[in-house]
Amino acid sequence: MTKVTTGATMSLDGYIADASHGGFEYLFQWYNNGDVETPTATPGMTMRTSAASAKHLRDLTERTGALVVGRRLFDMTHGWGGRHPMDVPVVVVTHTVPDGWERESDSFVFVTDGIEHAIDKAKAIAGSKEVGVNGGTIAAQVLEAGLLDEVHVDLVPVLLGDGIPFFAGLKITPVQLDGPTRVVEGNGVTHLAYGVRKAG
Amino acid sequence: MTKVTTGATMSLDGYIADASHGGFEYLFQWYNNGDVETPTATPGMTMRTSAASAKHLRDLTERTGALVVGRRLFDMTHGWGGRHPMDVPVVVVTHTVPDGWERESDSFVFVTDGIEHAIDKAKAIAGSKEVGVNGGTIAAQVLEAGLLDEVHVDLVPVLLGDGIPFFAGLKITPVQLDGPTRVVEGNGVTHLAYGVRKAG
Repeated sequence: MTKVTTGATMSLDGYIADASHGGFEYLFQWYNNGDVETPTATPGMTMRTSAASAKHLRDLTERTGALVVGRRLFDMTHGWGGRHPMDVPVVVVTHTVPDGWERESDSFVFVTDGIEHAIDKAKAIAGSKEVGVNGGTIAAQVLEAGLLDEVHVDLVPVLLGDGIPFFAGLKITPVQLDGPTRVVEGNGVTHLAYGVRKAG
Repeated sequence: MTKVTTGATMSLDGYIADASHGGFEYLFQWYNNGDVETPTATPGMTMRTSAASAKHLRDLTERTGALVVGRRLFDMTHGWGGRHPMDVPVVVVTHTVPDGWERESDSFVFVTDGIEHAIDKAKAIAGSKEVGVNGGTIAAQVLEAGLLDEVHVDLVPVLLGDGIPFFAGLKITPVQLDGPTRVVEGNGVTHLAYGVRKAG
């Protein structure tokens, strides 16, 4: 079975961005506060982290076979310049295929008939590897649909006070998770993994 | 120097209670999901946790020499029946000494001239031990006043979706913390400690 996971860097008070959709200078310090380089598929984008975080990132990349993202994240990042930094195919959940893009290529697949079909498509691409879901609103929908298996949190020691929650707009709270099934201590970040309990 | 700390059991999405001031059946499962008994000063109140959480609780109790709490928490708990479960003196920040209570006894000291004086009083009582601050609103005031040294979070794998944040109403965000300086894995809880950065 292809595992479906989601992950985010989150402030200690539960936000993946501040109320102005910023705060990344605090949240993503751990991407650049160490000595160990982790290259990405994006030219010029190299992460410099602690050894523990570098291994965490490398493991994540090796485990991940495809991503599912919302149209908003795709637009915000301008399609990551044509290829996602994790160097895997990305399934984009959208109402319409954006102008100038093929419906399906090696780097992007646009799915216009809902989140379940997007997950199915990503699973077919990922095969024995995992499907990663980003960002929070899409992750909340996947969790609500009972399709999520794991939640990964990179917990950062900053209090933002207000902002965008990881699972924004989640309608099925409270949601009890299992674990943490994994705890990795980086520098200025704690990498936590939790399992989603399945009904029946 | 007497260290001033605050701690709370918090949901993964940053809440110490749900929006109805409840949710404790989820947040405090770790108090009663293990085999190791930790007695408290409250008759009939024994915690049954994992061995790791029991050691964490025992260490906390041994380190703590006095508590500072808000009047609301004192009223909600009816003065913990006369003695706090941690068996230490409690300094209550209040506008007036409640009816039927002495201003100062071995178990409670009521301070009516502000948070700084309450912390001073608690430090004098605690001596070489630590001062613990509860709950979140008082902790936010102590943090804003530059008097807090450490933040302890018992992180629980539940998403409440909405609720009362740990540092409710904090006015000085973002607040960057150091650490975690301690990570203890319990059963269904991760005990995290962070240092507060001091100006100058």
